[in-house]
Amino acid sequence: MKKAVVLLSGGMDSATTLAIARQSGFACYALSIDYGQRHVAELAAAARIGQSLQVSDHQFLKLDLAVLASSVLTDISATVPLHGTSTGIPVTYVPARNTIMLALALAWAEVLGSHDIFIGVTAVDYSGYPDCRRDYIDAFEKMANLATKAGREGMVLTVHAPLIDLPKREIIQCGMELGIDYGLTVSCYQADEAGYACGQCDACHIRRAGFEAADIPDPTCYRNKQIS
Amino acid sequence: MKKAVVLLSGGMDSATTLAIARQSGFACYALSIDYGQRHVAELAAAARIGQSLQVSDHQFLKLDLAVLASSVLTDISATVPLHGTSTGIPVTYVPARNTIMLALALAWAEVLGSHDIFIGVTAVDYSGYPDCRRDYIDAFEKMANLATKAGREGMVLTVHAPLIDLPKREIIQCGMELGIDYGLTVSCYQADEAGYACGQCDACHIRRAGFEAADIPDPTCYRNKQIS
Repeated sequence: MKKAVVLLSGGMDSATTLAIARQSGFACYALSIDYGQRHVAELAAAARIGQSLQVSDHQFLKLDLAVLASSVLTDISATVPLHGTSTGIPVTYVPARNTIMLALALAWAEVLGSHDIFIGVTAVDYSGYPDCRRDYIDAFEKMANLATKAGREGMVLTVHAPLIDLPKREIIQCGMELGIDYGLTVSCYQADEAGYACGQCDACHIRRAGFEAADIPDPTCYRNKQIS
Repeated sequence: MKKAVVLLSGGMDSATTLAIARQSGFACYALSIDYGQRHVAELAAAARIGQSLQVSDHQFLKLDLAVLASSVLTDISATVPLHGTSTGIPVTYVPARNTIMLALALAWAEVLGSHDIFIGVTAVDYSGYPDCRRDYIDAFEKMANLATKAGREGMVLTVHAPLIDLPKREIIQCGMELGIDYGLTVSCYQADEAGYACGQCDACHIRRAGFEAADIPDPTCYRNKQIS
């Protein structure tokens, strides 16, 4: 079996991406980065998802980006944006996050002798994020092939972003067909330690709208039962 | 003053690169990555160099690459290559190291509002490393401009690699003109905690040959006095 490194955050998109990689016949090596984000519940979710989708290995790497980066996702004193998505680049954007995570995935891929990296970015719901777009992924892949031994020796490394053109509704439909239990995933920017969602932040809004559009009952555990 | 993020390892090349960035009129923000390498003496050297070249700020970021990467530079049980350089990609190559370090520099640059990153790679003495070559640096720069807010908004980010075409002799001559005390730097792959060099490894060989070629006394502190 060919090996793939799959970036796994604990959210819906990366869980679906892992299921797709597995379905495509890869032995999956899940990589979760703890970059000091406020929603540590996501990492617990990542562990559950990795186990449920029978990854070959799962590594958790700690990286204290708070030293460098100011963002509401790493600064617990800030307030996350509520009530709907906004235009432009969101304030929840973490500088160079996908570049850092893909670089770490690249390192592991090289060690494993893997030529396939999967990342669950989507340009549809998160078009405001510069590092979720197709031209960025293509540019990373090109750079990666010049960065590594394998690339220099003619083995082509591919960065797979299977969700990039899918709206949340289709991501959910795809994942349901692959048997994902989305109740294991956490999307909320301010989930509590047990993984209960606020139901108010942008991530919760996008998630709930996705289940509604897919006409599938929302399995999310909300702190405020009245939301669900 | 424009800000630049400068990757500073504690070796000669990054010290020279910092001096060049400073000479070019940048306020320099030094970034040193502790990726679990055996030569921790390099980080102490980085701190000395940053102080001596009056950086505006110096951050040390810990990243335990040993979880992912197998390399003699991160595995203290391995033996480093001795007696001269070899052909091909060296065994001391750390997978995706420059990609990871540049990604972290990119994150800090974005936070600082800086559009300039300096890295002291050279394609001359280390031609075996895929991520020390011009085409790689150019590809990273292109990717970085698609990855970031600033790049998307038309601010061009530049990855400077001022040493890339210079042999060690010219790097040393350049650094001496800029007033660098190379006695502060550590190159040895197996330097002891006080920074004393072995005099035997590839890095020591390249370093000493550079001073000889530049006709400048070697300021390196060797453990075995007979070497110097």
